[in-house]
Amino acid sequence: IVQSNLSSHSVELGEHRHYMHKEIFEQPQAVTDTLQGRTTDSAVLVSAFGHGAEAVFKQIEQVQIIACGTSYHAGLVAKYWFEDIIQMPCAVEVASEYRYRNPVIRHNTLLLTISQSGETADTLAALREAKKTQPDLSSMTICNAPESSLTRESNLVFLTHAGPEIGVASTKAFTTQLVSLALLLTAIGQVQKTLPTARETAIIKGLKKLPTLIQNALQHEPLIKEVAQLFADKNSALFLGRGTMYPIAMEGALKLKEISYIHAEAYPAGELKHGPLALIDDSIPVIAIAPKDELLEKLKSNLQEVKARGGQMIVFEDEDSDVRGDDEDLNVIKATTNVGRITAPITFNIPLQLLSYHVALIKGTDVDQPRNLAKSVTVE
Amino acid sequence: IVQSNLSSHSVELGEHRHYMHKEIFEQPQAVTDTLQGRTTDSAVLVSAFGHGAEAVFKQIEQVQIIACGTSYHAGLVAKYWFEDIIQMPCAVEVASEYRYRNPVIRHNTLLLTISQSGETADTLAALREAKKTQPDLSSMTICNAPESSLTRESNLVFLTHAGPEIGVASTKAFTTQLVSLALLLTAIGQVQKTLPTARETAIIKGLKKLPTLIQNALQHEPLIKEVAQLFADKNSALFLGRGTMYPIAMEGALKLKEISYIHAEAYPAGELKHGPLALIDDSIPVIAIAPKDELLEKLKSNLQEVKARGGQMIVFEDEDSDVRGDDEDLNVIKATTNVGRITAPITFNIPLQLLSYHVALIKGTDVDQPRNLAKSVTVE
Repeated sequence: IVQSNLSSHSVELGEHRHYMHKEIFEQPQAVTDTLQGRTTDSAVLVSAFGHGAEAVFKQIEQVQIIACGTSYHAGLVAKYWFEDIIQMPCAVEVASEYRYRNPVIRHNTLLLTISQSGETADTLAALREAKKTQPDLSSMTICNAPESSLTRESNLVFLTHAGPEIGVASTKAFTTQLVSLALLLTAIGQVQKTLPTARETAIIKGLKKLPTLIQNALQHEPLIKEVAQLFADKNSALFLGRGTMYPIAMEGALKLKEISYIHAEAYPAGELKHGPLALIDDSIPVIAIAPKDELLEKLKSNLQEVKARGGQMIVFEDEDSDVRGDDEDLNVIKATTNVGRITAPITFNIPLQLLSYHVALIKGTDVDQPRNLAKSVTVE
Repeated sequence: IVQSNLSSHSVELGEHRHYMHKEIFEQPQAVTDTLQGRTTDSAVLVSAFGHGAEAVFKQIEQVQIIACGTSYHAGLVAKYWFEDIIQMPCAVEVASEYRYRNPVIRHNTLLLTISQSGETADTLAALREAKKTQPDLSSMTICNAPESSLTRESNLVFLTHAGPEIGVASTKAFTTQLVSLALLLTAIGQVQKTLPTARETAIIKGLKKLPTLIQNALQHEPLIKEVAQLFADKNSALFLGRGTMYPIAMEGALKLKEISYIHAEAYPAGELKHGPLALIDDSIPVIAIAPKDELLEKLKSNLQEVKARGGQMIVFEDEDSDVRGDDEDLNVIKATTNVGRITAPITFNIPLQLLSYHVALIKGTDVDQPRNLAKSVTVE
């Protein structure tokens, strides 16, 4: 008999109407749990990645991330981080494509799978295929399920410690995957000496602030609930972001799609002019993520284009972004204070989760068990 | 005084109602022009890539493709080809993201830009940024405009010879980009000796068959016109493909979006279960591309899932694919005979162009000048 580690508390709804809502609000604690025991005050503990991690991290020359759905989006955020912060080449691919396309796997690649359940069929098959092609491949999984196929078949395992996730639409699993990826990047940078100590300290301190940042972002729920009304009679939506906010936009769109059945799609804002701008009229709300960074002015000009075509917009911004200007009609949610390169995408994702949740309530869909979907995709 | 090379014939509509329609039907000739003088009967002429091409092709260890919109989709198809056929690592990225994200550029990278106009602002800026970061970078552009900024600023230039494209939605430019990319892959494989002679011959012979294959695909117009009626009252659509047909699905979706204002989105079919399946009901037609290859059975099972949820489907298949089985209700278009790995995506794209064209006619939109879009995006 294997005893479940789930306490009865962790699977009860408590004051929440849905598991998804409960899991959204558990994120400050989930992030605390992910970080717990993995860092000192100012540095990541490489040993937290398990026996042999240091040797692997020393020799890798690129990271290949393989995942599906929401986990794929976490990988896409990490690509920006890896190349920008520690100059580690990183590629990310959907598992169902990677496994069948006869990819080139270079020497000294870390093949990194990401999966909540550790049983995602395509991800597991991609890992197995890659190991066959390159028997000396180093593999690692970032996973929420300690006793899963991916954890058994990977050289290194990093558990997200998100706790059980019951809602089919992933929320805290995604957030803790991002935190885990940030720790991984820090660990590789520390071992390869590509991450200055001061930068490492700043990243760790930033991650430790996340529970508070997420808590603060959650407090915008009443305003988000109000803004969600905009979607009552809508069937389509576009999400825009640049840089790491592009995969966050993808995740926001996927969430809305999954639980409200609105056809939401994300675009990197710079691609608007290359086609999707033709869609814009008052029937398709545009959701933009606008952190105060070096791309803010570019994004503002993209939003002007949307506005000029009659598009209705919702902007999630930093306290200092000031996307509104003197446009009183614009729906602006000041989702967070100006946050760092690692913490920003993690924090901006939170209000998007709440938005999809409240739109689903308005649409009257089954939030925790959306039609046609299963929690873990264990078949092809 | 610079005399234009455009003959008056090439910019007249002739029997066609729109430039887009004319340009779709010009594709057999456009492909002939792209191939003209670039090959022998059985091999590619490396010299067609210009002075110095052989030396560059000898030393490159990976290809980084940068493009926007439709050209980006051509790059995505090429990635599958490069890695599968000549084991050349290849990455593809949207220019507006690449230029701002501080990417790692490895030594011996061929930075390949793709652009119809040669003036796409983000693509040009990405090239300039990359050259600044890595002054010894080899650059090449696949371009339709001989005297453009990209051709001036790239080490190597390969002109697509598609002729003038007036319709804002790119058709023959895309097709000739794909042919050019196939020639490039063949040339690199020849120089690096990663492409067996027999395979090279097969590829060249396949490319030479393309004008006929495209001609045959165009003959399905009456059936496609009929099937287009399905979209008369629709506002959303999903396009599905696997492997190279995934970027072809993306291009099909973009075309529909651009000229009919239907919110069309493409997914790699294996990702369906990870979210988009929630969207499926009878209001969102699903368009699948089903070549008879090793992924056909997987795709058929994805389509079963769609059908089980009440989705209306249109399948573009090979003569031998037999996706219909005994399902009399399924809209099946036998778009082509069983074609090769290079010719298949190029051929399957043709009926998708016709589909978007006929849907736009039904919707009554401005086919050649869709709202909000410009032919060349020369500003950010």
